[in-house]
Amino acid sequence: MEREKPSLEEIFCPHGIAVVGASQSETGATVWVQGLQEAGFPAIYPINPKYTEVSGLPCYPNLRAIPGVVDHVVVIIPAESALALLDDCAAKGVKSVHFFTAGFSESGYAERAELERAMLDKARAGGFRIIGPNCTGLFVPRSRLASAIGVPLEPGPIAFISQSGGHAQNLPFYGGPRGLRFSKVVSYGNALDVDESELLDYFCQDPETEFIAAYIEGVKDGRRFLKALREAAARKPVVIYKGGTTEAGRRAAHGHTASLTSSVAVFDALCRQMKTIQVDDMEELMDVLVALRFASPLPRGTGVAVVGTGGGPTVLASDEVEKAGLHLPRLSPEVEAELRQFLPLPGTIFGNPLDARSLMSGDGISATLRVLGKVSNIHMFIYHLGFHPASRWGGGRLSSPAFLQPVINSLKEVQQATGKPVLLVLRPAPDLSGMKDFLAAQEAFVEAGFPVFHYLRQAAKAIARAVAWNQA
Amino acid sequence: MEREKPSLEEIFCPHGIAVVGASQSETGATVWVQGLQEAGFPAIYPINPKYTEVSGLPCYPNLRAIPGVVDHVVVIIPAESALALLDDCAAKGVKSVHFFTAGFSESGYAERAELERAMLDKARAGGFRIIGPNCTGLFVPRSRLASAIGVPLEPGPIAFISQSGGHAQNLPFYGGPRGLRFSKVVSYGNALDVDESELLDYFCQDPETEFIAAYIEGVKDGRRFLKALREAAARKPVVIYKGGTTEAGRRAAHGHTASLTSSVAVFDALCRQMKTIQVDDMEELMDVLVALRFASPLPRGTGVAVVGTGGGPTVLASDEVEKAGLHLPRLSPEVEAELRQFLPLPGTIFGNPLDARSLMSGDGISATLRVLGKVSNIHMFIYHLGFHPASRWGGGRLSSPAFLQPVINSLKEVQQATGKPVLLVLRPAPDLSGMKDFLAAQEAFVEAGFPVFHYLRQAAKAIARAVAWNQA
Repeated sequence: MEREKPSLEEIFCPHGIAVVGASQSETGATVWVQGLQEAGFPAIYPINPKYTEVSGLPCYPNLRAIPGVVDHVVVIIPAESALALLDDCAAKGVKSVHFFTAGFSESGYAERAELERAMLDKARAGGFRIIGPNCTGLFVPRSRLASAIGVPLEPGPIAFISQSGGHAQNLPFYGGPRGLRFSKVVSYGNALDVDESELLDYFCQDPETEFIAAYIEGVKDGRRFLKALREAAARKPVVIYKGGTTEAGRRAAHGHTASLTSSVAVFDALCRQMKTIQVDDMEELMDVLVALRFASPLPRGTGVAVVGTGGGPTVLASDEVEKAGLHLPRLSPEVEAELRQFLPLPGTIFGNPLDARSLMSGDGISATLRVLGKVSNIHMFIYHLGFHPASRWGGGRLSSPAFLQPVINSLKEVQQATGKPVLLVLRPAPDLSGMKDFLAAQEAFVEAGFPVFHYLRQAAKAIARAVAWNQA
Repeated sequence: MEREKPSLEEIFCPHGIAVVGASQSETGATVWVQGLQEAGFPAIYPINPKYTEVSGLPCYPNLRAIPGVVDHVVVIIPAESALALLDDCAAKGVKSVHFFTAGFSESGYAERAELERAMLDKARAGGFRIIGPNCTGLFVPRSRLASAIGVPLEPGPIAFISQSGGHAQNLPFYGGPRGLRFSKVVSYGNALDVDESELLDYFCQDPETEFIAAYIEGVKDGRRFLKALREAAARKPVVIYKGGTTEAGRRAAHGHTASLTSSVAVFDALCRQMKTIQVDDMEELMDVLVALRFASPLPRGTGVAVVGTGGGPTVLASDEVEKAGLHLPRLSPEVEAELRQFLPLPGTIFGNPLDARSLMSGDGISATLRVLGKVSNIHMFIYHLGFHPASRWGGGRLSSPAFLQPVINSLKEVQQATGKPVLLVLRPAPDLSGMKDFLAAQEAFVEAGFPVFHYLRQAAKAIARAVAWNQA
């Protein structure tokens, strides 16, 4: 006899969380307890018969010994103990069990696949859901349910569905300084119970989610996924990175999450047809999210004005922008003449791209971008900074408010006046003092609401995909 | 009547350098004086009639007033004063004049192109050479002739010919922490006198140069370049990044260094035919140099074993490696069985790629890579570290000698025992404490002689190009 399954919505707002396998050593389980503590989750129950205290919290010998409500369980004990634990979960009346534990069907052993099926039977009978196994489970900022230390805890408009736990934790970690914030992140591993289609359906409806990102290795039910993807993509931008697109990648995906990855050609065609944005790796997934989230409004065409300092970087920027499928409209003689009236002759590349030292000042930016902004087939600006030695990070020069504030104010003003978004490209430094300067400058631009990229190629590819999606 | 031209060899070893246009404000000229001081160049003569001292050195009103020998002159005064200055240069008997000054033929004004031609006449008559104009000139570590602050000053085996001053300074700056060191770097801008072909000829013969890198926007004399490239590429690896490969890039290159860039298709075909390595941007140029310099010996084939921790990153690594044209040989059942004897079941992806927690320890690496190293069609190892949250940088854990030394020792030992190189992929962190850890770990790997890359894609693409070159 099956009890009614809890909804995902219920699972995303637990009141009490037990961490089974918590210990006083530096293990995954301890990190889990600390992650929840850092997030300020109010009712954390470490479970381990060997301890009475873990990370300053009372530790219980088993689930049943916990006095309070437990609706979510994080499991980090060997796979062999899974079935007995699930009996306890049923007895305690939990709603969801997340197995960080690996070593199930993905191991390739038949008896481990068997074990998974028995776990699913127990979940169905016990009226609770299983997330995973073999994943990092849930990250729900609003519920203070965090799965990692060091990720931003403010909620935001992006949902991320990730078959990989590593990618699930890396995206908020790396995307945080670039302004990405999340409604929910779900790593679902072997997809024994909760799977990509159910999650897509949920995020399609979720009012807290404006953008859906997904890392998928294999799809369990093609027909169902197709339907979920169609509906989600019709309502919200959906960005997908498909892992396992090569022969070796498929082998790896099978060993990772027991996924039987589908034909790449079929998946590609499907993504195009469904108006989803398919990307080639996790960096690009992050870049496209930055473009969608912060290039506001999205450019109404593919015309770019490339502005910044440095001749070599300017040539490179032009090549990258055109190779990405965007274009740099040539300026009319009248517009070029207007620029020559106030830009210095030496060291300036007139036209589009435009390279001038005066672009390192707020006034220079205002004067120049207002002229370029009038050109009707220029739909956006790419402003690159930090690729030229003269503007090299270091000594805190570029992150100093005296430099940065006028630049930011001018860029905002230009964006407002022209209705054309500005994309920033800031290059990370190779040394610590440079990185300090870089991170401070990046923070200021992100806080001001700009999309920030680290390489010209990445900016060009990401905004090209966003524009293509917007025009489809 | 023309005097005999000094050779490049003479120009690369000046005894006295004058910096014309030096001042006490924060200008390019001051940075030049400081760069030479930092490099320990013994005889620096700032020139500016307005000062008697610049950066602690006596400042002279003009070239003729300098008591000592001056054989190299760095010029940072307006283009309008160029001809008068060159008369002084002839009178002083200098060997080379480097114009940092811009605003010549690249400006698009006919009279400025005229001015360039008059300058060349003066150089021919005066028996000295011109570098540039519109460039950052010479960086010769052995001669303590530095053009920028913060670049490594030890000499090394790489020569870099760069039409862009920005790229000329960025490559040593960004490549430094990855172990790249240079014999000579020459930024030659508008190529009025010293050009790409003469430089290629020189570096082809230069005993201090083992690898030649080039950033070229336009070629002055196609036939001559062809000959120089053929001879250089027959003797040494030549890596070229061609700027201005798109319509907008060509416009930019023309405005940057007055280059008329040639047909991309012709240039591509030429590079292939001449056995040079052509790359798509400056990052890739750096990556290929790292591969050529430190993957030692270069792999004898395209078979890769991908090892590291993290399921998602492992799937991604496999995809990237195959997409780059390399391949991951499938392991035989016997080899896989051997691995299963000692690798833990949970969390492990058996086979190739291989993902196991034990790869985070020296012993785990030794045991695993010795097994994989026996597979005959595996020609190299890619070891990736820092892509998985469990191994995330921070708190100094990964850069701690307790972790790092055994890992480095085991990797070296495996490399030695198998004769197959190990390539490292370390991901930079998004925050300062993580970057501190990352930079320390990178330094340790670089010091131990390993090629270090920052992204899986970059490592795969770079080594694929190096292997293809090696097999051509």
